[in-house]
Amino acid sequence: MTSAARTATEGRPVVGLDLGGTKIAAALLDADGTVLARHSRPTPARDGATAVLDALAAAAAEVDPGRTAAALGIAAAGVIDPRTGMVTSATDSIRGWAGTALGAGLADRTGYPVACDNDVRATAGPELAALRARPHPAGSGSLLFAAIGTGVGGAIAVDGRMLHGASGIAGHLGHLPSPEAAGLPCTCGATGHLEVIASGPGIAAHYERLTGAPVDRLETVAVRAAQGDADAVSAITTGAAAAGQVLGGLANAFGPDRVVVGGGVPRIGPLYEDALRAAFASELMGPLRGLVPRAPLLGHDAAVLGAAALTTTLPLHHPGALR
Amino acid sequence: MTSAARTATEGRPVVGLDLGGTKIAAALLDADGTVLARHSRPTPARDGATAVLDALAAAAAEVDPGRTAAALGIAAAGVIDPRTGMVTSATDSIRGWAGTALGAGLADRTGYPVACDNDVRATAGPELAALRARPHPAGSGSLLFAAIGTGVGGAIAVDGRMLHGASGIAGHLGHLPSPEAAGLPCTCGATGHLEVIASGPGIAAHYERLTGAPVDRLETVAVRAAQGDADAVSAITTGAAAAGQVLGGLANAFGPDRVVVGGGVPRIGPLYEDALRAAFASELMGPLRGLVPRAPLLGHDAAVLGAAALTTTLPLHHPGALR
Repeated sequence: MTSAARTATEGRPVVGLDLGGTKIAAALLDADGTVLARHSRPTPARDGATAVLDALAAAAAEVDPGRTAAALGIAAAGVIDPRTGMVTSATDSIRGWAGTALGAGLADRTGYPVACDNDVRATAGPELAALRARPHPAGSGSLLFAAIGTGVGGAIAVDGRMLHGASGIAGHLGHLPSPEAAGLPCTCGATGHLEVIASGPGIAAHYERLTGAPVDRLETVAVRAAQGDADAVSAITTGAAAAGQVLGGLANAFGPDRVVVGGGVPRIGPLYEDALRAAFASELMGPLRGLVPRAPLLGHDAAVLGAAALTTTLPLHHPGALR
Repeated sequence: MTSAARTATEGRPVVGLDLGGTKIAAALLDADGTVLARHSRPTPARDGATAVLDALAAAAAEVDPGRTAAALGIAAAGVIDPRTGMVTSATDSIRGWAGTALGAGLADRTGYPVACDNDVRATAGPELAALRARPHPAGSGSLLFAAIGTGVGGAIAVDGRMLHGASGIAGHLGHLPSPEAAGLPCTCGATGHLEVIASGPGIAAHYERLTGAPVDRLETVAVRAAQGDADAVSAITTGAAAAGQVLGGLANAFGPDRVVVGGGVPRIGPLYEDALRAAFASELMGPLRGLVPRAPLLGHDAAVLGAAALTTTLPLHHPGALR
């Protein structure tokens, strides 16, 4: 079934969907990755999983009203198991999302064969494909990819293959201990994890702890840092250094050929990037010296492009499987 | 060459060598893993790499004086690249060890085809083989193996394959940041790494920091803890908790099917083991709940058995390659 479905996608367009806690992005892409149509709409995150699946199907219909696509790939928030198509677990950023049959539910609603994975692994897919395409005498196509935004996620690939891990959990780089986060509660229920101090909300919360002054978002902290506010500088560089430190330690543990840091937070500028790179470099063991975190190859469309590419690498879930 | 040499090992014994900073252990093993002969001698660690290679060759000759073995596998301290047979880097526990041509140098001295890897990956090999042999409906043969002793090392296997990583560095679990080690210098040159607080010398040094009283070794701290010394209890449980915390975070990042904690330090008893397990459990994300660190399957002979097994899984380095 799977290989037959893959053959059928050749030359035909594919739908890519990116589901975040606040927004759904959809695109129709032709066989060489050109975007033929785009659509976005808010995620009905407070209305439950059924409403979210309905909204995803509606977004797909907007970009492919003629149903020309051969398959649909979705990059979704939460811990996703691509083999079962289930949302293994999730925070409450989408109500009732954990336990949702994402693959089958979306296949039933749209009629497309559906491939699904978490949003970060999907986004990292094209990075891995590019790494595999390069001549690599010393390496083996191993990638450490971090996505630092509302949370801290990631993806790990080894020998050219993306790791999924037990229950699809591999890549949760935000849930390693960080000295800078010691004692602070994490969204996952544990304490002291990197995500607490290095995510966008984590940096804003740290600024609040330093100043006692509430701040609405990371961008406000970034503006104050640019104006010379020492606490804002400290909150940003602390978060960046915490991320660089954990990524450097992870590099020591698995020896990647390439390290990529994406997501919205690094885009606040060189203050962040420089602190992350310095902390990363100071962690590395001797044989890894020279390894430098890079920006992602793809920009704005990375998630929907990666989502569409899932249809060529992952198991497809077909309509009717739930019945 | 490699496959021919492997065929030639069938039914014939194999030499296993375990090179540590203080001791060389050698064994001759028959085809089903039974130990036919043993030998050990001190590592001439202060005398340089040539002396160490000579001592390794002499140890091999002790267990196989009739030269019946088909091949030799060596598990060695340091960062080893099994493909090149080189010691990529090493601490100064063996003088001049970094840069040694271990595979070719030992093949030349002994006449055997030689497979080499770092000691922890070699020790973890039989653990992985056992994991692969089990029925595993939900998993994929992924192993997180920690060895906590004089240092903190480890091995990571994914989808049934041991990771080597860039320059053979994969598995260096002791060089991730630990909140308990913040600011303390590590053997690798960085600061704040797990090894500083969780290794045997790290626990002893922590006890010294707590009490101001010098202590020669971990066992002394363990005896004092058993006698009710609160600082000794604290040093041990802090080291154990630091290890459990980092291993739990790594489990979140990799999603292993099995976690094994070996090495000499956990053998000091339940005080250590309980603290490690509790810290590990408190780190885990929801889908991993129920994952529990286990003791190694093999005891005293694990390293030489694992070393011998390298000859069936890794490239063999042949005599004469240096010339």
